[in-house]
Amino acid sequence: MTLYFEDLTPGRVFKAGPVSVDATEVHDFALRYDPQPFHLDAAAGEASVFGGLVASGWQTAAYSMRMLAASELNTIANGLVGLQIDKMMWHQPVKPGDILTAEFDVMGRKHSRSKPGFGVVQLAWRTFNQRGDLVMSLENAIWVATRDSAAAA
Amino acid sequence: MTLYFEDLTPGRVFKAGPVSVDATEVHDFALRYDPQPFHLDAAAGEASVFGGLVASGWQTAAYSMRMLAASELNTIANGLVGLQIDKMMWHQPVKPGDILTAEFDVMGRKHSRSKPGFGVVQLAWRTFNQRGDLVMSLENAIWVATRDSAAAA
Repeated sequence: MTLYFEDLTPGRVFKAGPVSVDATEVHDFALRYDPQPFHLDAAAGEASVFGGLVASGWQTAAYSMRMLAASELNTIANGLVGLQIDKMMWHQPVKPGDILTAEFDVMGRKHSRSKPGFGVVQLAWRTFNQRGDLVMSLENAIWVATRDSAAAA
Repeated sequence: MTLYFEDLTPGRVFKAGPVSVDATEVHDFALRYDPQPFHLDAAAGEASVFGGLVASGWQTAAYSMRMLAASELNTIANGLVGLQIDKMMWHQPVKPGDILTAEFDVMGRKHSRSKPGFGVVQLAWRTFNQRGDLVMSLENAIWVATRDSAAAA
């Protein structure tokens, strides 16, 4: 079962997850990509604006991508190819031990003017913790092949 | 030397990098967070819209964060605390062996209405490869303490 532009009707919702926020993974990611004290050390986290050790916001995005890539949306014909991200916000800290889930809502779509056989689909990502708190949200334009183009190939 | 809101005058530019895009790191990141064939396998990459194995767009963001966290901006009093990302775009594929640099431009700023002693600073991130091609750009609002608040503490 392959998803094409025609299948991504506005209002359709794809649920994904859960993933567990692993303490070792949080430490490794921070050390490589975002080595700030509040991502690496419990005492520094407690002294920070977050009041505790928190995952890098980029790691929350990466975990959300993991959930997206394991969702039904991973059957999009040409893969998950992002064009643009807007309104990416971190609403609540994410901490080791949290369990995340995500929802991907189709907000709108349009055929490409520059590339026949493709369209741009607008997705809203929302990531939640185990208490149902929204921890991250964003809007994401992706590039999706049309079924017509596949039939013609 | 600590940076406060007052120091981040519009027009100021912070340069950062380089970082090398390491083939093992690209593979590990993709396996964990974005396991799509065109991020994991050379043949699948060649058959994809990218025409070759490419790093996850989220990894390019993570490498850019690494450069930011190693730049002079890592001396911001309260750390690098992101509020929002907009207009994040991937302009060119990033491939193993590429060497990335980044520029962080102060675009604007305003005092916080809700939290005295803090302000919001707008940064433009631009990430380039070794040929000078822009590979990623975004706009990022960050949360920065004022010098006045530090003096009063």
